[in-house]
Amino acid sequence: MNIDEFIERSLGKWRSQRSAHHLAFHHFEEVTSEIEILSLDNHDARVTALCKANQVDPHLISSPFYMAWTGESDWDEDEVLTGSTVLVPVPDSENPTQGRLLREQGYAETVPAIGHYQLIEDGSFILRTKYDRATAEEKIWFATPNLRLRVSLIKTGDGKGVTTASFSSEIRSLDLSE
Amino acid sequence: MNIDEFIERSLGKWRSQRSAHHLAFHHFEEVTSEIEILSLDNHDARVTALCKANQVDPHLISSPFYMAWTGESDWDEDEVLTGSTVLVPVPDSENPTQGRLLREQGYAETVPAIGHYQLIEDGSFILRTKYDRATAEEKIWFATPNLRLRVSLIKTGDGKGVTTASFSSEIRSLDLSE
Repeated sequence: MNIDEFIERSLGKWRSQRSAHHLAFHHFEEVTSEIEILSLDNHDARVTALCKANQVDPHLISSPFYMAWTGESDWDEDEVLTGSTVLVPVPDSENPTQGRLLREQGYAETVPAIGHYQLIEDGSFILRTKYDRATAEEKIWFATPNLRLRVSLIKTGDGKGVTTASFSSEIRSLDLSE
Repeated sequence: MNIDEFIERSLGKWRSQRSAHHLAFHHFEEVTSEIEILSLDNHDARVTALCKANQVDPHLISSPFYMAWTGESDWDEDEVLTGSTVLVPVPDSENPTQGRLLREQGYAETVPAIGHYQLIEDGSFILRTKYDRATAEEKIWFATPNLRLRVSLIKTGDGKGVTTASFSSEIRSLDLSE
């Protein structure tokens, strides 16, 4: 599995069930959402702008994509969680099973969001992103072509403790790649 | 990581938060439980009986253990989910990163529960168990020495569809191996 195959398999609309375990308090949170993942052209203006902001040569990128979501948490049913972003993989030239993942900065974020990904033996995609005070670690894999699973950990800044562990099961509701 | 190390790291008492996603209905179920995992002697009577029932030479086994749990589901708070079992790994002589896992039969079970395990590159333990009408697939790994994560899939008999996807985060509450 390379990054192009992984993103090709991820394209489409997904209905997600997410459970977050807030470990210190043994709390559960349930979120249901719709996720849409669309392929973007390498020359799309949002892609080239993101390359420029990160000083990345646009010739080195592969399979840029757009992701949008809208969800609801059982903690506050009136709050609608919506958002969208552009993501651009930059495979390592020497080892294409790993690389950087550039993410469009939200207007409220001050730190550039550059994650490091790795595709491992069993087909899982691992993404690590360091923020100011925390590290996010995601593991995403396909149980079937139409069921994508995701485990996300929010770690303390030093990477030693885990504050939140989340699990998403994402069922394909429409395959836009067909 | 070999099976002995994996079980050594699993010994102790764990407090578990489990979320089950019942995929067809987009239902969530929350279970909190206490799990205890204890090392057993190779010559323990329950271990030798399990070997005999499965016609396995007791010299081939490694790190047998006992597991007990007691939990509560948010679907029926009056129901207390308790149980215990004995588990016996039988590593393949040619490839010790994989093998069989014998499980003591519950009195209500008619089919012997023999799973096949595999330890993969990233330290995850994968276990597949076939039942009459379903296949269970579990992936267990350590996020930290005191945080064990587990994703369990219940698949249809043919192995193509997934009916339930569950996620457990297990926090060590007491290390009995010390």
